[in-house]
Amino acid sequence: MQTLLDTLAGIVGPAHVLSQGDLTAWEQDWRQRGHGKAFAVVRPASTLEVAGVVKACAAFCAAHPESGLSIVPQGGNTGLVVGSTPDDSGRQIVLSLQRMGAVRQIDAANLTVTVEAGCVLQTLQQSVLDAGYLFPLSLAAEGSCTIGGNLGSNAGGTQVLRFGNARELCLGLEVVTAQGEVWHGLSGLRKDNTGYDLRDLFIGAEGTLGVITAATLKLYPLPAAQLTAWAAVPSMQAAVDLLGLAHRHLGAGLTGFEVMGQFALSLVGSHFKQLRVPLFQDWPFCVLLENSDHESEAHARTQFEGLLEAAIEQGCVSDAVIAESLAQAQTLWQVRESIPLAQAAEGLNIKHDISLPVSAIPAFVEATDALLARAVPGVRLVNFGHLGDGNLHYNVQAPLGLDAAAFLRDFEPEVNRLVFDSVVAFSGSISAEHGVGSLKVDHLTHYKSPVALAMMRSIKQALDPHNLMNPGRVVKV
Amino acid sequence: MQTLLDTLAGIVGPAHVLSQGDLTAWEQDWRQRGHGKAFAVVRPASTLEVAGVVKACAAFCAAHPESGLSIVPQGGNTGLVVGSTPDDSGRQIVLSLQRMGAVRQIDAANLTVTVEAGCVLQTLQQSVLDAGYLFPLSLAAEGSCTIGGNLGSNAGGTQVLRFGNARELCLGLEVVTAQGEVWHGLSGLRKDNTGYDLRDLFIGAEGTLGVITAATLKLYPLPAAQLTAWAAVPSMQAAVDLLGLAHRHLGAGLTGFEVMGQFALSLVGSHFKQLRVPLFQDWPFCVLLENSDHESEAHARTQFEGLLEAAIEQGCVSDAVIAESLAQAQTLWQVRESIPLAQAAEGLNIKHDISLPVSAIPAFVEATDALLARAVPGVRLVNFGHLGDGNLHYNVQAPLGLDAAAFLRDFEPEVNRLVFDSVVAFSGSISAEHGVGSLKVDHLTHYKSPVALAMMRSIKQALDPHNLMNPGRVVKV
Repeated sequence: MQTLLDTLAGIVGPAHVLSQGDLTAWEQDWRQRGHGKAFAVVRPASTLEVAGVVKACAAFCAAHPESGLSIVPQGGNTGLVVGSTPDDSGRQIVLSLQRMGAVRQIDAANLTVTVEAGCVLQTLQQSVLDAGYLFPLSLAAEGSCTIGGNLGSNAGGTQVLRFGNARELCLGLEVVTAQGEVWHGLSGLRKDNTGYDLRDLFIGAEGTLGVITAATLKLYPLPAAQLTAWAAVPSMQAAVDLLGLAHRHLGAGLTGFEVMGQFALSLVGSHFKQLRVPLFQDWPFCVLLENSDHESEAHARTQFEGLLEAAIEQGCVSDAVIAESLAQAQTLWQVRESIPLAQAAEGLNIKHDISLPVSAIPAFVEATDALLARAVPGVRLVNFGHLGDGNLHYNVQAPLGLDAAAFLRDFEPEVNRLVFDSVVAFSGSISAEHGVGSLKVDHLTHYKSPVALAMMRSIKQALDPHNLMNPGRVVKV
Repeated sequence: MQTLLDTLAGIVGPAHVLSQGDLTAWEQDWRQRGHGKAFAVVRPASTLEVAGVVKACAAFCAAHPESGLSIVPQGGNTGLVVGSTPDDSGRQIVLSLQRMGAVRQIDAANLTVTVEAGCVLQTLQQSVLDAGYLFPLSLAAEGSCTIGGNLGSNAGGTQVLRFGNARELCLGLEVVTAQGEVWHGLSGLRKDNTGYDLRDLFIGAEGTLGVITAATLKLYPLPAAQLTAWAAVPSMQAAVDLLGLAHRHLGAGLTGFEVMGQFALSLVGSHFKQLRVPLFQDWPFCVLLENSDHESEAHARTQFEGLLEAAIEQGCVSDAVIAESLAQAQTLWQVRESIPLAQAAEGLNIKHDISLPVSAIPAFVEATDALLARAVPGVRLVNFGHLGDGNLHYNVQAPLGLDAAAFLRDFEPEVNRLVFDSVVAFSGSISAEHGVGSLKVDHLTHYKSPVALAMMRSIKQALDPHNLMNPGRVVKV
């Protein structure tokens, strides 16, 4: 294996092949659900270097099939499903894209930006903002996650309702295949029907089919104004009704629609006392709405007021406020974004990232709440998420007084089974925006259609016949 | 082969296996670029029947590999690249989806509709309109093309600028695989990260990987008003500048942006004298703009006027009108839609469906116009298309006085080479929205990246190892 290290050092430079010392930053995911042991961390600085590394590893594997060597691509290592850290075999190379962070080109007339995989999402947002444009992907980890990871995991976030997932924001990719060839697919084209959609195959494949090294992404004009409102609603059905009204009143101006259960908000209230949580005690759910307007703030406000008046009249909103200032709007979003932290402060819990048809959510929540209450007396549900996309973070917290670790140990498998069975019964997905990684790969075997799984395996074998790329993630072959 | 016919008759009923008489309607594409000979036309009425047919054919091929039998899925047979008619071997089964036309379900709260593959696009548009919603896919053949064909070919059309291609409008598919298995992927989910994106692999695969039998598609609220404007511009660069301004002024309200060259408009003027073509003689290009507003017609008009004033001030619009009535708007669209017919009336011509980064279009047009003028003295260019998507129908008409048939015979290969070389030099695509079919499969071999072609072949072999589905289309294996 030393020969391989020398070869790799020859490609990326000796300073960028790390095999000694503390590699925890690359070997452990940030939620600390997995801690592996890398054979080496390799940090290429260009697409050609990535291709060289993959080619060298493929050649080594061909010569030494007993080595069990494989490659784990890694971006910002902020994933939630243990998909970008090595296993504990000591036979995996972590291929870190973090040195490839350039914003290669902003094409204003084409409304596109071409960027390298290792660019941090927030850096990209800021670069295009400086040029007067919006790149709308936005999520909690944006300060450290990278574009390559966003595309590899088809990241979602808070603006999906209007702009789609990472997939919908991407027009073209540059990819190093499992054979170490470079596919130059960096198209800035909005229409291109010349064969199979390879782009969307690599997006969401979590590095199991090849390595995304760069992407051409859509830009949007900056809105003239962005307003935030907070509405208390009498039920989940009322929240769904409000969503329908908001679509009609705001059209494409509706860029955010988040729902938060009362218990989730009360956790923010008790763990972050400096945040004033508005309007929550008397109603089961609150909704945060965002209206982005290309005209003016006055226009946005009139539109928002019209919507909320209609909603109050129809009974789907009990009480509402529109933020008067940017600072107030940021506080409202901060309340929403603080739920995961408040929940962590309350103790370990069982997280779910599920999606359902929006129309099915009220019945799903009612049925699943009841099932859980029966299975775990006193259970507390931290239910919040991107209702506009049908995406709930339906998390399960230990009953008051029960030790959180004991709760996880005793109840996690049953709670997962119960929630996932219910999701499938309501035609939903057990992984909406976080992906599969290692954590959900066995759940997928159980819940995904066997016909789909067979096609996934065929594709994996076709594009990566030696199982070199991130083996064991997404689909086992 | 008679046994197979009997088996198929047992599955779909004897009345729906056609092997005698005039089968021209299924054997010939509507532009009459290809006329084949089917072994039979089979017309299943359900997904299970489709699966039965494919399974029976797969079994027959396994038992009789020398038969060379294969399947050509067909929808409305309105394609432009000879992708859904049989070859002349007499060994292909045309699998017509036209009996599967049901709109299965409209889910208003989820903003989705589930529809069978054989449903005619216009029928679907009308069904959801009756329920108060918009399905925005819109193209010339909408009166006879089907949803299955739209998805199989990833159709584009006039609303792509705002709503994307057929691909972006689809949330889930039901597919019969090349093995005759049913994949139930009819998700109404806006987020679902449970493995490889099989949906987008079948979309645009032109029936070469399996048969799309149904789809769940996105709906939108109906706009409150839709206004159309017509602007004369001093150059293609001015048209591109106008597009940028329109994005800023109208935001997501901008739902149409079509460019038309002067010669294209003059053909409409001379072949359709009853249509009054506005504002074209003095300027090289005109632009048709559409503004869809969720508020009111008055608001739409104010927005449009603001845009056009700014554009005239900046010099990127020379003159403009906003349609005063729906009838006037329809006439403007009719002028745009009449270009292909006017062009046909003028005589046979060489058609191109190309796309480029919007920013590259002015330079591409200038360079390619000059190359063609040198290669074919007196050549006439019918240049029009969806500029908002970077998609031009850059068609080449014989010089005045030259026989059209002789022109095609003598110049088509050279003109194609010249245009396609130029497209590739400007980072464009040689098939923007019409697909590959038979007509462009050899062009693709020449112009597409070998790395991409190799991946396409691997995928085809993985999912359809016996080359049963629409062989020879999209990619040859």
